[in-house]
Amino acid sequence: MTSLNELQTFWNEIKETAIQNYLTYLRFASISASPDHKNELIQCSEWLSKLLKEGGLDVQVWPSKGNPAIFASYLKAGKDKPTVLFYGHYDVQPVDPLEEWQTPPFEPTIKGDIVYARGAQDNKGQSLPLSMAILTLLKKRGSLPINVKILIEGEEEIGSPNLAEVLHKHAKELQADSVVIVDAGMKDSKTPSVTLGARGLCTMDVLVQGTTGDLHSGSHGGIAFNPIHALVELFASVRDKESGRITIPGFYDDIIELTPKEREAINFEMNLEEYVKMFGTAPTGGEKGISPQERGWLRPTFEVNGINAGYSGPGFKTVIPAKAIAKVSCRLVPGQNPDKVGLLVKNYLEKKAPPGVKVTVTLHEGKGLAVRASPLSHAAQSFAKAYKELFKTSCSFGYCGGSIPITYELAKVSGGEPVFVGLGLDDDNIHAPNEHFNLSRIEKGFLSIARAIDILGE
Amino acid sequence: MTSLNELQTFWNEIKETAIQNYLTYLRFASISASPDHKNELIQCSEWLSKLLKEGGLDVQVWPSKGNPAIFASYLKAGKDKPTVLFYGHYDVQPVDPLEEWQTPPFEPTIKGDIVYARGAQDNKGQSLPLSMAILTLLKKRGSLPINVKILIEGEEEIGSPNLAEVLHKHAKELQADSVVIVDAGMKDSKTPSVTLGARGLCTMDVLVQGTTGDLHSGSHGGIAFNPIHALVELFASVRDKESGRITIPGFYDDIIELTPKEREAINFEMNLEEYVKMFGTAPTGGEKGISPQERGWLRPTFEVNGINAGYSGPGFKTVIPAKAIAKVSCRLVPGQNPDKVGLLVKNYLEKKAPPGVKVTVTLHEGKGLAVRASPLSHAAQSFAKAYKELFKTSCSFGYCGGSIPITYELAKVSGGEPVFVGLGLDDDNIHAPNEHFNLSRIEKGFLSIARAIDILGE
Repeated sequence: MTSLNELQTFWNEIKETAIQNYLTYLRFASISASPDHKNELIQCSEWLSKLLKEGGLDVQVWPSKGNPAIFASYLKAGKDKPTVLFYGHYDVQPVDPLEEWQTPPFEPTIKGDIVYARGAQDNKGQSLPLSMAILTLLKKRGSLPINVKILIEGEEEIGSPNLAEVLHKHAKELQADSVVIVDAGMKDSKTPSVTLGARGLCTMDVLVQGTTGDLHSGSHGGIAFNPIHALVELFASVRDKESGRITIPGFYDDIIELTPKEREAINFEMNLEEYVKMFGTAPTGGEKGISPQERGWLRPTFEVNGINAGYSGPGFKTVIPAKAIAKVSCRLVPGQNPDKVGLLVKNYLEKKAPPGVKVTVTLHEGKGLAVRASPLSHAAQSFAKAYKELFKTSCSFGYCGGSIPITYELAKVSGGEPVFVGLGLDDDNIHAPNEHFNLSRIEKGFLSIARAIDILGE
Repeated sequence: MTSLNELQTFWNEIKETAIQNYLTYLRFASISASPDHKNELIQCSEWLSKLLKEGGLDVQVWPSKGNPAIFASYLKAGKDKPTVLFYGHYDVQPVDPLEEWQTPPFEPTIKGDIVYARGAQDNKGQSLPLSMAILTLLKKRGSLPINVKILIEGEEEIGSPNLAEVLHKHAKELQADSVVIVDAGMKDSKTPSVTLGARGLCTMDVLVQGTTGDLHSGSHGGIAFNPIHALVELFASVRDKESGRITIPGFYDDIIELTPKEREAINFEMNLEEYVKMFGTAPTGGEKGISPQERGWLRPTFEVNGINAGYSGPGFKTVIPAKAIAKVSCRLVPGQNPDKVGLLVKNYLEKKAPPGVKVTVTLHEGKGLAVRASPLSHAAQSFAKAYKELFKTSCSFGYCGGSIPITYELAKVSGGEPVFVGLGLDDDNIHAPNEHFNLSRIEKGFLSIARAIDILGE
């Protein structure tokens, strides 16, 4: 019997239990952004600890200033076997706007193969199959072929503000050869993917202050310098219109490019027709001469995420506002330091302020370094092989354009090479009303993790 | 006895009546923006009609789709005497925020010389002395030295949406040599001013549409063209950074410059220290090489009055918004046509849209042509002389940077050269809580109008 056939048998035997556990897990309203849900977060973490402990793992609950992290381990495979640290999270996003949900977000509803609930995918639909795969292998075989560590935290959806401290405190327990972040997605519903990194991030508020109060644009138009004019001039100057490149000196200085070998393994293809169909327009942002997918994965950005000044409601108000505000984020790539880039942007904008207005840039706490792993690592290759067997098609290697700042710390503290895996799809409505996942991906999640563990141990 | 001494005697005799009339006038909550105040508008117009009629004028009430306009005339001065059409309005601005008023807005409160009430200046504090001056001259002398027409409308504060139709219907009755708009202000509390024109206006909404829905700036940053980036690029391109000039081809084409003789009469001085003290920063807007006051009076503008896109509340949202919106107004000067300029701007912005976004500019109905009168006209010179006698200092000639679109129509339909007069000051809080005026300016308003009428008739 091949390994995959054996694992399929295991699944068939524990399927009912797995689905019941999944539904129980989904019923906890573990919204980390809401102080009102503290109890449900604790109850969820206790339930999960119990599940892992009763399944035979060593479980520690690591308290923090926020919600506790659960650490479970199996270290009996021997020193000659790799140690793999798996990461997931038990907290979920808020549910607003609640009125757009067609079923209650914390009463999981199954329609055919589809399960509707907050967290159905992100991340309960991924961390539950992860846990079940490990527990089932252990139960059925009495041992695991590798040393396994599982970290399931409770503050991912609010940016893991307290996890770094916990990681550093438990650096010894966290040592691993690989870090597998089970919170990523497939290229499309038929093509599995191994994600080799995420972009870094720095964010800031920009304030342009003109006069002390709002002015009438009749009496003062042509006299006062409109802060909106200053802001558009500043922001326009940040981006070269022809090349699409950011003009801030030093912005691109520290970037570490892909090696030719890494580049060879990556699939930068993007279905442009599909993109236009999904989003209504062509992918024309970013730098000229670089493919859209590479721009979204491997190039840094300067993005204005919000801008607001003056009056923009119904009708008209002939005002020259006293101030204009904006929110800016920069996605960063390996080599770029968020503090350094943040300061570059701050200094550029503040110094370039035209006479008569004052520009103040406030850098936010929320920031993170980019993460990049090799497509040739043991974990990446093992998951690619497992996915290929399971989906009967080659695994795609790609990156995540978003930022999961804690993963940089996780890789650094554990010493393991990171890799992002998972079976999410773009239309799972994560972070949105009617989040959903399907039972067949719960099964595939179980099988792929279990199969990858076997391959990792070979 | 000089004319001014005689007029002062008249004032002393009617002062009590004038002030009682002023307070009665102020008690009508004649808010034209509010449909709930329709009755008070009608009652106010009836009270005013009665006052003018009982004083010996021929009064007509001109109905419109909105609030009626009151037309009163005295045409017995003879055909060799000039005919002067005076303009004012009996409607007032809304009172929000009501909680910021220190006294009830429609219970006029006198503290020392100061009267607090909505409309205390704008325009009841100016149209009442106008009416009283004419009625008193007629009563005391039995005749007026010029032919007088008075138009007091009830929709100025909402942009006179129905007055143009009324003006055209009554073009014959409105014929005049001069149009005196009694709704303007002094240069400062010691320096009277005759205002020789106002800027025109066109306004528009700008919509930049990118993708069909908001996107995550991690997944799509560098791929999608952010509509905010398109908007700042477009707006920045409208204004030459070095010269401050608007770059839209044709924008300045039709401007009629001042003649050297007109220019000589105008006082373009601005107290820059005072400006910085009042507004907190130097007047650095508009075109380089032109003085701030001239820029504010005689140069056209492209002003972004509002801009809004993405998320700008507390915290951060890493969004690429689907769309960005803005409101733009252009102040115009004589020669410029608001429809033509509006179209120039619309075409420029729509055609310059970068690939991947669509720009739609919607021109608003609210618009108007600039008005410019000669400082050498009979009415301008007569008021300047009257003011000089009364204030014992030279009258300043200037312009209004704002727009009073109906005055262009008024001048055109009546055939009269327009001039703007009045005793408003920047800190009267018109359109704001705690609007106020003072009794000494009620007296000076009476005396200046009466004296100007005498001079006009010489």
